[in-house]
Amino acid sequence: MKAAQRLLELAAKEGVTACFANPGTSEMHLVAALDATPQIRPILCLFEGVATGAADGFGRMAQAPALTLLHLGPGLGNGLANLHNAYRARTPILSLIGEHATYHRANDPPLASDIASIARPVSAWLKTVERPQDLLADAAAALQAAKAHGPAALILPADVAWSDVEPDAPPQAPPAPQAADWGERVDRTARALNARAVMLLGGRYLSARACAAAQRIAEKTGAQVYVETFPTRIARGRNTPPLKRLPYLTEMSVGLLAAAEHIVLAGAAKPIAFFALPGRATELAPAGASIVDFFPPFGDPTDALEALAEAVGANMPHTATAEPPPAAPSGARLDPGGFAQIVAAHLPEHAIVSDESNTLGLYAFDAAAGAAPHDWLTLTGGSIGQGLPLATGAAVACRGRRVVALQADGSALYTIQALWTQAREGLDVTNIILNNGAYAILKLEMMRAGINAQTEAAAELFDLQRPGIDFTRIASGFGVPAQRVTTTDELAAALRRSVATSGPSLIEAVFK
Amino acid sequence: MKAAQRLLELAAKEGVTACFANPGTSEMHLVAALDATPQIRPILCLFEGVATGAADGFGRMAQAPALTLLHLGPGLGNGLANLHNAYRARTPILSLIGEHATYHRANDPPLASDIASIARPVSAWLKTVERPQDLLADAAAALQAAKAHGPAALILPADVAWSDVEPDAPPQAPPAPQAADWGERVDRTARALNARAVMLLGGRYLSARACAAAQRIAEKTGAQVYVETFPTRIARGRNTPPLKRLPYLTEMSVGLLAAAEHIVLAGAAKPIAFFALPGRATELAPAGASIVDFFPPFGDPTDALEALAEAVGANMPHTATAEPPPAAPSGARLDPGGFAQIVAAHLPEHAIVSDESNTLGLYAFDAAAGAAPHDWLTLTGGSIGQGLPLATGAAVACRGRRVVALQADGSALYTIQALWTQAREGLDVTNIILNNGAYAILKLEMMRAGINAQTEAAAELFDLQRPGIDFTRIASGFGVPAQRVTTTDELAAALRRSVATSGPSLIEAVFK
Repeated sequence: MKAAQRLLELAAKEGVTACFANPGTSEMHLVAALDATPQIRPILCLFEGVATGAADGFGRMAQAPALTLLHLGPGLGNGLANLHNAYRARTPILSLIGEHATYHRANDPPLASDIASIARPVSAWLKTVERPQDLLADAAAALQAAKAHGPAALILPADVAWSDVEPDAPPQAPPAPQAADWGERVDRTARALNARAVMLLGGRYLSARACAAAQRIAEKTGAQVYVETFPTRIARGRNTPPLKRLPYLTEMSVGLLAAAEHIVLAGAAKPIAFFALPGRATELAPAGASIVDFFPPFGDPTDALEALAEAVGANMPHTATAEPPPAAPSGARLDPGGFAQIVAAHLPEHAIVSDESNTLGLYAFDAAAGAAPHDWLTLTGGSIGQGLPLATGAAVACRGRRVVALQADGSALYTIQALWTQAREGLDVTNIILNNGAYAILKLEMMRAGINAQTEAAAELFDLQRPGIDFTRIASGFGVPAQRVTTTDELAAALRRSVATSGPSLIEAVFK
Repeated sequence: MKAAQRLLELAAKEGVTACFANPGTSEMHLVAALDATPQIRPILCLFEGVATGAADGFGRMAQAPALTLLHLGPGLGNGLANLHNAYRARTPILSLIGEHATYHRANDPPLASDIASIARPVSAWLKTVERPQDLLADAAAALQAAKAHGPAALILPADVAWSDVEPDAPPQAPPAPQAADWGERVDRTARALNARAVMLLGGRYLSARACAAAQRIAEKTGAQVYVETFPTRIARGRNTPPLKRLPYLTEMSVGLLAAAEHIVLAGAAKPIAFFALPGRATELAPAGASIVDFFPPFGDPTDALEALAEAVGANMPHTATAEPPPAAPSGARLDPGGFAQIVAAHLPEHAIVSDESNTLGLYAFDAAAGAAPHDWLTLTGGSIGQGLPLATGAAVACRGRRVVALQADGSALYTIQALWTQAREGLDVTNIILNNGAYAILKLEMMRAGINAQTEAAAELFDLQRPGIDFTRIASGFGVPAQRVTTTDELAAALRRSVATSGPSLIEAVFK
C-alpha cells in the first residue's frame, strides 16, 4: 500500500473529514489516496490562501483539524497569511506540504526552496518526513500537536508519499498530555479577583458557558472582564452576556486598564499594542500591575472558568443581558451604525459571523449582543484576506447553519476566489462586502503614526475608486449571485432574501 | 530628515523609478517618504502577489530594480510565490518589508513573525536593519546585490524608518565587482564545442545579439544549441534565429541530450528534471557528459557569447531564419495550433509576451519565431499566478510597447486582481485567458506519475467547470473591458481591436 494512502487512513481514523486543496505535481499520490479514503472530502480552492483560511474556519467551528494540501514552498507561501491567522487563533489544522523527492532536492530544481524555513514561523509543529517508515508516527504526532496547539505542518517528499509500506498496525499515538490540575491556579486566581482586577478572556473557543461564568465572576467579585481584541471564536446573542472586547485603539485600551492592579489572563495573551507608534505605549497594562496566568491561549477555557466561578462563590445567574437590536432608521443611506443594527436584526438563529469588516464594521459586534444566538469569528492574526475563506470553511464544518461574512472591500480582494468554492459546494454563506472604496484603516493609522495631512502618495495608495470595483460582477463571474444596496431598507431586504435562500450570495453594501 | 526618506532618496539616485505597493501600518513612514521622492512612482496593487510579480516583470524589462513595499511576514507570504519566480529569474528587485518597531518585537504582537525565515528562501540578499545609522549602507548593499544577483530584501523596523537621521553624504557603495576575465573560459569552452556538444542558453536576458551569436556558434561548430526550458527573457521574432527551448517533458529532453559529450552552460543551470517521477531520471544529461560552466545564470551573456563566437571563428551571419507565421484556418474552433498561429500573426512590433499559457500554449513560442520582433518572458520558477502581474510590471517599464499575456485559466485565478492595476494605470496589456475549464497540466502529470485512470478525487480537484468561470465578468468588475471568443476568426478580430486600442483589455479564449 502507498504511504500516502496509509497517511490518509490514519487521518480519517483520527476524525479528519475535510481536505482543502489546490494540489500540484508533487501531491499526485496524495490526490490518488483521497479516492481510497472516502471519509475525507476533497474541497477544491482556486488559491492556497483560500484553502488555509477555509481550514481555519473549519477548525474553529468543528474543533477538529482539516487537512490542507499545499504545493511546495510557493504553494505554502500563498497560504501563509491565513496560516498566520490560524497560528494566532491556535486552530487545529494539519497542512500536508508536498516536497520534491528526497533524492531530487540536491539538484535544486526550479520549484525547490527551503520549505521548513517558510513554514516555521506559522507552525506550532513542523517536520519533514525523510523516510517512509517514519511517516505514520510523524503524522500521528502532527495530528496530536494540531489538536493541542494549532497548525501543524508535515512536509512530505514525493518519493516518501509514493513508497510502498506494509499495512501493519499504525504506531501508537503518543499519550495525550494529562489534563492540568487547576486547583492551585484556581485558588491563586480567585484571590486576585477584586474590583482592582481585570480578567481578559480568549482561547480557542469562548463558549456561552464560558462567557456566562466570566460574567458571573465579574458580578460577584467586582472585577472587570473583557474579551481579547480579536477572539478566535465567541458565542454571542441574547442568551449570553454582552461582554465587551478590549478596543483595538491602544489609546482606548490603556484607559480601560489604567486602574488595574491584577490582569488575569484566561485564554488571552498579555495585552499589548497591535503596532508600536512614535511616543505611544506598547504595553497596555499599567506598570506594576501583576499578571496572573490563569488559562493558556490554546484550548477551551470553559471548564476552568466554571471552576473559578465556583471558587469565588459566583453561583447565581448573571444579571447583565443585552437588549434586542433596535430597529434601524428606515430609508437611510448606509452608515456604520445603521449597518450594524440591520445585520444584528437579521442574523438567523445559530448563524456564524466571519468578521473582517474593519473600520466600517466597528459597531457590528456590540450591536449583535442581543441578536439571535450565534458564533462570532475575528481576524486573529491581523493578516487581511481572511474573511471569505474563513466563512467558506465554517460553512463546510456546519452545514445547516447560515454563515454571514462581514467583509471590508480592500481585504475582500485578497482572496475573492473563495466565492467560487462557496458556489461549487453550495454553501449557505451570505457575503456582505462593505464598500467604501478605500483602505480606510490606513488613513486612520497614518494619522495615528503622527503623519499630518493626507499626502499625495497616501492618497494614491489608500484609494480603491480609480476605477471603482464592481463586486457584483466579480461575484457573478465566480458563480455567486449578487446585488448592490445603498440604503438600510435595501440591505434589510437583501439580507432577508439571502438567508432564506440556500447556497451563497453576495451583497455589496455601498457606503458613500 | 526621516530615515525612510533618506532611503528612498538613495534608491532614486540609484535609478529606481517605481514602487509596487500594498502598504500597511508598519510602512506608513515609507508612504510619507514617497511624497518627497517624486522620481519613484507608487503603483498600488490589490494583493502583494501582484506587487512582487509586477516588480519581476518591471525588472526583467528595465534591467533595473523596482521596489516592492510589503507588510510584515504575512504580506511577504502573499508575495512569496512571485518572489520565488523572480529569484529563479535572477531579476533585480528590492523588497522593503515593514517590521514591528525593534522594541515591540519582544511583545510578540498579533502580526509578528520571523520575517527573515520566510524571506531567506527567495532572497539573493537579506538583512534586517537594526539601527538607523546602518540604513543607508545596508540599502546601498541591497541595491547592488539586487542588480548583480536578483531579489534583495531589506527588513525595516518601523522605528528605524521613523528615526531622524542627519542628511550627510550617503555611504560610498561598495565597489562593483570586477568584470571577469573571460579569456580562459572562452578558450576552454571553444575547445569543447563540436558536433558532440550541446550549449544551453539562459541568464537574465537573451538579447537578439546573444541569440545570433549562439546560432552562429552552432552553425560553425556543429554543436546543438537550446534555450533553457523557462528563460527569464529572450528576444524573438523574424530578426533572431528560431532557437528551440529544451522541452519541459524529461522524456523528450533526455532524448535530445542523449548523444552529448559536453554540456556548455551559457547562463543556464545544469539540465535537471522539473519533478522527480517514479522510475525516471532526474539528471537530463547522459552520465559521463562533461559540464562546461561558461557563463553564470545571472547577468546578460551577450558579450560573452560574442567573444565565444569570435573565438570559434563564427563571424559569418547565421543562416537559420524563421518563416513568417502561416495563416490560421478560418472559422475554425480554437485549438492549440490555431491559437498559436493567430497570436503570432497579430503580435505588434516590439510586443512583450508574458507566457503562462501552460498546456494550451504549447505551440505559441515556436509559432512566433517568425513574427514581428518581440520579447518573450516565461514562468521561471514554476510557481503559478505569475502571468498577469508580470505583464503589468512589464507594461509599466515599457510604456509605448504592447504587452500580450498568454494566460492559462487556472493560473490566472491566483492573481486576477492584477487586472485592476492595469486599468488604474492605463497600461497597454492584452490579456488572453486560455480557458479549458481545468487544471489540464495536472491530468498530464498524474499520468506521468504512473497513476492510471482519472480517479474521482482527481476529477474533483482538476476541474474548473462546476461552476464555469466567466472571466469577462470578473475583468469588467475590475474595470477592464473583456470579450469571449471561440473561433480563430473571433480571436483574430479581438486581437486586432485590442492592440489598436490603448489601455488594457481581456480576451477569454474558450477551448472546448
